[in-house]
Amino acid sequence: MAPSFAPSSSSYEYEVFVSFRGADNRTGFTSHLFAALDRKTIHAYKDDINLPRGEKIGPELLKAIETSRIAVVVFSKKYATSDWCLDELVKIMECKRVFNQRVLPVFYHVAQPEVLEQKGNFAELPNGPEDKRNSWRAALTGAANLAGLHLEPNRPESEFIEEIVENILKKLNEESSTAPSLRQNDAPGQHSSATIPHNDASSGQNTTINAIADWNRFFFFKIFFSR
Amino acid sequence: MAPSFAPSSSSYEYEVFVSFRGADNRTGFTSHLFAALDRKTIHAYKDDINLPRGEKIGPELLKAIETSRIAVVVFSKKYATSDWCLDELVKIMECKRVFNQRVLPVFYHVAQPEVLEQKGNFAELPNGPEDKRNSWRAALTGAANLAGLHLEPNRPESEFIEEIVENILKKLNEESSTAPSLRQNDAPGQHSSATIPHNDASSGQNTTINAIADWNRFFFFKIFFSR
Repeated sequence: MAPSFAPSSSSYEYEVFVSFRGADNRTGFTSHLFAALDRKTIHAYKDDINLPRGEKIGPELLKAIETSRIAVVVFSKKYATSDWCLDELVKIMECKRVFNQRVLPVFYHVAQPEVLEQKGNFAELPNGPEDKRNSWRAALTGAANLAGLHLEPNRPESEFIEEIVENILKKLNEESSTAPSLRQNDAPGQHSSATIPHNDASSGQNTTINAIADWNRFFFFKIFFSR
Repeated sequence: MAPSFAPSSSSYEYEVFVSFRGADNRTGFTSHLFAALDRKTIHAYKDDINLPRGEKIGPELLKAIETSRIAVVVFSKKYATSDWCLDELVKIMECKRVFNQRVLPVFYHVAQPEVLEQKGNFAELPNGPEDKRNSWRAALTGAANLAGLHLEPNRPESEFIEEIVENILKKLNEESSTAPSLRQNDAPGQHSSATIPHNDASSGQNTTINAIADWNRFFFFKIFFSR
């Protein structure tokens, strides 16, 4: 699943890709999240649940992830029981590494350490080749380490969704107001439900990483269109 | 719990009272419903969960029900395990009978026959004196018999909530565009998720009922303000 295509800054197709476990919350929480994004005219990718699903995630989904500015990952209780979700997450973390895609983890009725250390609801991953399971584990740990939002007990979901959308809007505004080479990585290890600070101390390093990411974008973009 | 006060058409305090089981959906479905009502600037009563709760529903809640134009009853799986909810429902059905309050039942992950015949999730009512339990049963049967909205399996909740709000808006518009004595009762036995037809055949009877209800309103209103 190496990135086959990286969008230039003007060729993103979506502002948001949402990775979620359909069985947990397609008709519930995630439907409200999509509706809230719609109300703010934030263009999110929505998969067609009627499409036939193979054993692997298809090229349409891979391209949707690659061409989204921000990936939101809704970690719910059964997220890690789906190899489909885990493959999506591996792809998302790959796009973060290569293109510096923004990733927002959302902890929905799960605790961050469950995802980080693969325990509790995240203790049992699906069967598969060991290298695949290792990539799932690395992606879970990597994503859980990013600045995310956590639904506190007794907090109304409607408020939480507004906070998620505000956070996405902030990220989108940062994207558009900052030169690509100066874009900052999400600060690891921050799990505030109020604000998400950025890792100012590593901005020099980030500049280098982003410059490399931009070259990667350019390189893959050229390959894609010269096929 | 006889109605102590009935508002004149200009003295309603709320447009909507929502009766729901907090343990089932205070932070989830109902929070989204309240948010959707807010977005349409529909004034709904919201109880304070921090208020101490006695064995019986308090005068503030009783007055909130009496002074709401429409009562929405969210029947969820544990609704009928709460004597608090059932007492609210008895009060709502009383206001419907006496003041012709509009009532919209919403079937959220429960089937209408469960509520109508008190079976399935509604088979076990709380303990209490037999006359109280009989009033709960009558209120459940009466409410389930009204035109309501049912969440179909696999339907996004966000869409369903929009439908509920549209239905409420329609009822409010009917209220304001129709002379009080011509207001119609909710048609019993209709459970469409599309439209709620009205019982035209009984409009003559309804006119009489509404005229009596208006006299009741007037009578109670006079008593209330002459205390």
